[in-house]
Amino acid sequence: MEHPENSEQYKGLKVNKGISGVPTVNPYLKRRLQRREYTAPEFVGGILQGNITILSQAVTLVESSRPEHQQLAQEIIEKCLPYAGKSVRIGITGVPGAGKSTSIDAFGMYLISKGRKLAVLAIDPSSERSKGSILGDKTRMEELAREKNAFIRPSPSAGSLGGVARKTRETIVLCEAAGFDAVFVETVGVGQSETAVHSMVDFFLLIQLAGTGDELQGIKRGIMEMADGIIINKADGDNVEKARLAASQFRSALHLFPPADSGWTPKVLTYSGYYKLGIREIWDMVDEYVAFTRQNGYFSGRRNEQSKYWMYESINEILRNNFYNNPAVISMLKKAEQQVLNNEISSFVAAKHVTDSAAGLL
Amino acid sequence: MEHPENSEQYKGLKVNKGISGVPTVNPYLKRRLQRREYTAPEFVGGILQGNITILSQAVTLVESSRPEHQQLAQEIIEKCLPYAGKSVRIGITGVPGAGKSTSIDAFGMYLISKGRKLAVLAIDPSSERSKGSILGDKTRMEELAREKNAFIRPSPSAGSLGGVARKTRETIVLCEAAGFDAVFVETVGVGQSETAVHSMVDFFLLIQLAGTGDELQGIKRGIMEMADGIIINKADGDNVEKARLAASQFRSALHLFPPADSGWTPKVLTYSGYYKLGIREIWDMVDEYVAFTRQNGYFSGRRNEQSKYWMYESINEILRNNFYNNPAVISMLKKAEQQVLNNEISSFVAAKHVTDSAAGLL
Repeated sequence: MEHPENSEQYKGLKVNKGISGVPTVNPYLKRRLQRREYTAPEFVGGILQGNITILSQAVTLVESSRPEHQQLAQEIIEKCLPYAGKSVRIGITGVPGAGKSTSIDAFGMYLISKGRKLAVLAIDPSSERSKGSILGDKTRMEELAREKNAFIRPSPSAGSLGGVARKTRETIVLCEAAGFDAVFVETVGVGQSETAVHSMVDFFLLIQLAGTGDELQGIKRGIMEMADGIIINKADGDNVEKARLAASQFRSALHLFPPADSGWTPKVLTYSGYYKLGIREIWDMVDEYVAFTRQNGYFSGRRNEQSKYWMYESINEILRNNFYNNPAVISMLKKAEQQVLNNEISSFVAAKHVTDSAAGLL
Repeated sequence: MEHPENSEQYKGLKVNKGISGVPTVNPYLKRRLQRREYTAPEFVGGILQGNITILSQAVTLVESSRPEHQQLAQEIIEKCLPYAGKSVRIGITGVPGAGKSTSIDAFGMYLISKGRKLAVLAIDPSSERSKGSILGDKTRMEELAREKNAFIRPSPSAGSLGGVARKTRETIVLCEAAGFDAVFVETVGVGQSETAVHSMVDFFLLIQLAGTGDELQGIKRGIMEMADGIIINKADGDNVEKARLAASQFRSALHLFPPADSGWTPKVLTYSGYYKLGIREIWDMVDEYVAFTRQNGYFSGRRNEQSKYWMYESINEILRNNFYNNPAVISMLKKAEQQVLNNEISSFVAAKHVTDSAAGLL
């Protein structure tokens, strides 16, 4: 479906791009915007026209836990879905210190120079709004933050990983409907969040540093095998040889891994985020991957699998929440855990006791 | 707690080991055994005395889906729990063709020569009793099958992975109570079952073959990073050099992995299951691991974590079964999946619809 920029329904929200490139809206709409009184079709109209302010407000609704916000958010998402799905979604992970922000800044500016529109999202279930989110923080991406074709949004505030992941996944839909054709989802390689990110992107990029040992300590086991590309940062100056050596070590290691379902052999490249060296090669790799997996049908097959995966993930999370948030269950679990650790009852009998007792209460 | 072989309660089941080493029971008990009329304390008595026939029957109860069998089984397990936990539990995986059976035969005979008692269990959720279980098949372990100090039990019949895993985990408890101080849990490295096995053992052993490429194709991604030891089979004759080369490649690759939570650095060894070369070194490695992790507290800490893990896994499986086995839910899910794939509703809204509608039905 094409963006219905000229359709009757959305005319009221027609935006004019000001001289700075920042979209402006007419004064009447601006007032309503400030009072956040948009209807779902108005939100959708603004999003489809690429209005960043309206997109931001819609994302805020997605992230809100208030029921009336949630209802409106779901209406907007549903109307945006037919226009979504056209971006390439890229997961980016790496331990703190690997240079993720500098790299994303460099990658993003390169894509924008090629005429692309980029959304940078993040998943960090540990972040709390009050303490300030770390991931996706605009101030760390100096160049991108000033770019009209970039939309940077920090990680949704603390909550269960499932909740945070859902919000990010729905934000992708809104960003795509707003015309962003590249989406980065950033995460730190230390927790459970990589699996969540891996399950919502097309390509998974692991940023590493040269050197064996210390630098790798933070990356969680299993993440290397998820990567479609491993890129060694800080390949500049005296560090070039070290980075090349590390790349060849990673390449040998990857040879020992079984091939991925995609049929793609992960590539290892060196680059410098700071000096912007080797950036083009990274995007050539991503383009090559997309072409390769589109041709063998993996790309769309995986997207469908991901949609189903998230439906079942959401169901399971709802079932778990209903159960584990029940105060009676919480106190039963505490007792059951202790009995299991004392070898008084088996794990299964404990589970059966708790679920049987809870059945009468829920 | 010591085995209460001489306690009053269990006297009725006193077994005599015949000249062949196969335990015999008195004629009265034999009749009851044939009619399977044991009470839970009688089962427990037989198990604690190491009576293999009674152990086998108890395992059959564990595997049975009949409610009265399940109730008896859980009573037996509960009474065996205080005597369990004293074995070293070893997960063994490798693709078909890697030589798992020959290797387990060789490993087992070595352990038995050292005075150990060995139980060989298996997890293969795809196996069906009617088609004949593949894993843990006695006929494939020629030497062990004739050994009185070995208890070989094929994978529980088909069912959900959670169900099969629970049965195997409970069988471990019974085997340990029966005095088996080494437990192998065998699996094939191609499915989801490795994670289940990894979550019930102390040491995870991956059998590989020399050569890059084809032989590795079957192993699932992520399994290599679970391994505490990688052992390269068929290091004999002309193949020795190739195996050594493969070992050194694996060693370099493992250097790039982050360290495991145990603090243990996985080792890579070569051996020949068929010619029984390098077997002692493999068990020296396992012993070293056990000593190392017992000292740093990881061994018992992990056992506790595993018990809790399986309690929560069991709860989640019960919750999922209650939900997904409901016919109304099944038909709702079918429709919801299609709507999600058609981009009509988001994965989350679909999940919410289904759970909301189901709430009134369950």
